[in-house]
Amino acid sequence: MRKPIHIESPGIRNLPEGEKVLSILHAALDAVDPYQAMMRAIGLQGNHLEIADRELDLTNFRNVYLIGVGKAALPMGVAAEEILGAHLSGGILVTKADPGLSESSFGLKKARLLIAAHPIPDARSIQAAQAIFDLLDRLDESDLVIGLISGGASALMASPVNNVSLADLQRLTDQLLRSGATINEINAIRKHLDEIKGGGLVRRAPGATIITLVLSDVVGDPLDVIASGSTVPDRSTFQDCLRILGKYNLLASAPAAIRQHLDRGANGDIPETLKPGELDLKKSPTKVIANNQLACQAARHRAHQLGFDPLYLGSFIQGEARTVGQLFAGIARQIQKTNEPAPRPACVIAGGETTVTVRGNGRGGRNQELALGSVDDLDGLDNMLLVSLATDGVDGLSDAAGAVVSGDTRSRALDKGLDPGAYLLNNDSNTFFSALGDLIYTGPTHTNVNDLIFLFAF
Amino acid sequence: MRKPIHIESPGIRNLPEGEKVLSILHAALDAVDPYQAMMRAIGLQGNHLEIADRELDLTNFRNVYLIGVGKAALPMGVAAEEILGAHLSGGILVTKADPGLSESSFGLKKARLLIAAHPIPDARSIQAAQAIFDLLDRLDESDLVIGLISGGASALMASPVNNVSLADLQRLTDQLLRSGATINEINAIRKHLDEIKGGGLVRRAPGATIITLVLSDVVGDPLDVIASGSTVPDRSTFQDCLRILGKYNLLASAPAAIRQHLDRGANGDIPETLKPGELDLKKSPTKVIANNQLACQAARHRAHQLGFDPLYLGSFIQGEARTVGQLFAGIARQIQKTNEPAPRPACVIAGGETTVTVRGNGRGGRNQELALGSVDDLDGLDNMLLVSLATDGVDGLSDAAGAVVSGDTRSRALDKGLDPGAYLLNNDSNTFFSALGDLIYTGPTHTNVNDLIFLFAF
Repeated sequence: MRKPIHIESPGIRNLPEGEKVLSILHAALDAVDPYQAMMRAIGLQGNHLEIADRELDLTNFRNVYLIGVGKAALPMGVAAEEILGAHLSGGILVTKADPGLSESSFGLKKARLLIAAHPIPDARSIQAAQAIFDLLDRLDESDLVIGLISGGASALMASPVNNVSLADLQRLTDQLLRSGATINEINAIRKHLDEIKGGGLVRRAPGATIITLVLSDVVGDPLDVIASGSTVPDRSTFQDCLRILGKYNLLASAPAAIRQHLDRGANGDIPETLKPGELDLKKSPTKVIANNQLACQAARHRAHQLGFDPLYLGSFIQGEARTVGQLFAGIARQIQKTNEPAPRPACVIAGGETTVTVRGNGRGGRNQELALGSVDDLDGLDNMLLVSLATDGVDGLSDAAGAVVSGDTRSRALDKGLDPGAYLLNNDSNTFFSALGDLIYTGPTHTNVNDLIFLFAF
Repeated sequence: MRKPIHIESPGIRNLPEGEKVLSILHAALDAVDPYQAMMRAIGLQGNHLEIADRELDLTNFRNVYLIGVGKAALPMGVAAEEILGAHLSGGILVTKADPGLSESSFGLKKARLLIAAHPIPDARSIQAAQAIFDLLDRLDESDLVIGLISGGASALMASPVNNVSLADLQRLTDQLLRSGATINEINAIRKHLDEIKGGGLVRRAPGATIITLVLSDVVGDPLDVIASGSTVPDRSTFQDCLRILGKYNLLASAPAAIRQHLDRGANGDIPETLKPGELDLKKSPTKVIANNQLACQAARHRAHQLGFDPLYLGSFIQGEARTVGQLFAGIARQIQKTNEPAPRPACVIAGGETTVTVRGNGRGGRNQELALGSVDDLDGLDNMLLVSLATDGVDGLSDAAGAVVSGDTRSRALDKGLDPGAYLLNNDSNTFFSALGDLIYTGPTHTNVNDLIFLFAF
């Protein structure tokens, strides 16, 4: 499924180390390929299934089902079908529409494929959740479910509580976002307004064994945030939800049906989300099988093999993209000066998810803006290369995955009449790197573990 | 001269590792103490002077003079007087008014102390430059000058070219700052409008040997930027200056006297600033004797002695303060998760100069805002401590030098009704940390090598 990574930059293609750079990027993406991650996460020997650090005897189960939701549901499901073969009874995979979908779904034999909406849920998302509930309702102690969760699951399955519409949910989310609520606060409310979220999926078939494998697209892999925590307990309460609405002065303006539901919940008239200890989840664990850290560590391993001195700064990079770019340029300047924090040939690796405060009306994405933010401070450095890369292959509103910057990017830009500062001001990173021929293309990778940053000092 | 570092935070004072933290902060500041840096940079054995990697026989010189300009001119000058003793003929030290000045100047024996204005030059700054020129005008091949440069020198000595007033200079600087000109562009123009800048000091006594020692307060130690490059060649030209004014549409609105001067210079009617190769500067070198890197490396050394695994990320940290804080919190989260990039007990060290985009009307400084930016992401981590510190002891509009943050800062704040996000929104970091009792005080340190960031994982 993986297309080759294409770096448009003529300057990079002609680098003696260009092949090494590509090899390291490939190693990172291969490590988090959903299909390959599944192949590593599940093993079957006869009737003996190894999954999520557990060993299960499949003869103890009458049926084995797949429930896969997310942008990588299809490749994860295909891998699970290949491994489980005749042991699999059926299942449901929910994913978003994708131009490459028809060919990729070729291999699917037992699970049913549903297409739903992303990033804003629609009626198909409700139908998908209902289909999952219908399957779960038939299960008991003799059933095993393998859950496959990846980015986008929150939107792809939706089961709004009684009387609350998708439009209500969307309106409240907009209100909360505009009022400055944190993502944790928004999530707490979301879970209390949707039957399948906040542990709702796993609670629906309390007898069955449900083992969930997660491809994490959230920094830090918080299981109660990924897919709105559909398979794990939730610590937040109806009381918290009302407190949050009060904090942002939304008690009066929130949609009436939502306010009523939260009030009734706070009065104890509606069951809470799944709480810790309520279900014995030892038999139904949720496990991350691929994340940003895995990609970074694979890149580090390959970099080491290729003779680089790798330094992994972690997978928790957040904050304004341009400052993060500047910071990596600062590390490059220190390497140029004293060979610290890693001696040449060095490969500094990090990952996470930055943000872009949009003030202009240009075209770009956070990875390209990060790269643009590094241009001025990398200027004049020798044999340095900064690479930014969206692991899903699509950086913001562009068809590029990222960009490359070196010590001559600024002067090459000025020669073409492109002022990096002006493009940064206009959030127009894609236009800037496109004009220079310094974009990276991978095409959609069908995985997403957020973003990667590489700094090479050759 | 050094006052003890006082960390107000009760939580930190009671840490078993509190003394180690203080010891590492002290090591950093001691390494860049102007007096101590001078003591390391100059050595005298009989008539044999070691200075700036050179050995000079003082019997070859008739006179030895000091010319010191900057916020650290006094302690640097006192140290030079102590070392040179009877060899010293005299000199001039120019510094800014400071409450601690009267006692500090106690030791001064031969050099004359002048007080001038900072950060906006005034008539005293012009008198100071004139006094320096008067001294230089008397010198020839038989004279040795030891120049002592530290932060603030650009404002403390000013010698505007004919017909240009300080008010003109100030007005143009304001215009340039508002129009988005870079500091390099502003500096190019400044040097062409001031006789003592852009190599003007060293050019004034072409026969004399002038060895300049620099305490760097500019990230990356660019010698042509520190003190407006008074003792080094300048690559910019009058033509460049006109081009810059044109770029920002200031050709018409710039003060008339300035425009005339630049036009005449571009026509070749006025000599250029000192150009590379024009003077033989091998005998008159300029050398950095203390900078941010030295402080960081001293901290690293002490941290290593105390059993920490130190990681120095360099002295080129720039960008929006809150994102830099978030980034260090991200490194803390990775350490908590996998002991990377440095295993506990770890001490991550970096330095530089961040910026704050002021949107609120609170009280704070870039170091405290950096610390505030780390609060949310450090929340809940065990045995972590982030320390931000202005090496001059004065962080922005406050009397604190910085602040400390740990994994319980957020919850302690919320308990007191303080929402970190709200204080960040209002750039009110000093009020936030003051209420928590988590500020750091050093008092004025009489040095400045910008800012330091420490992340301890115990």
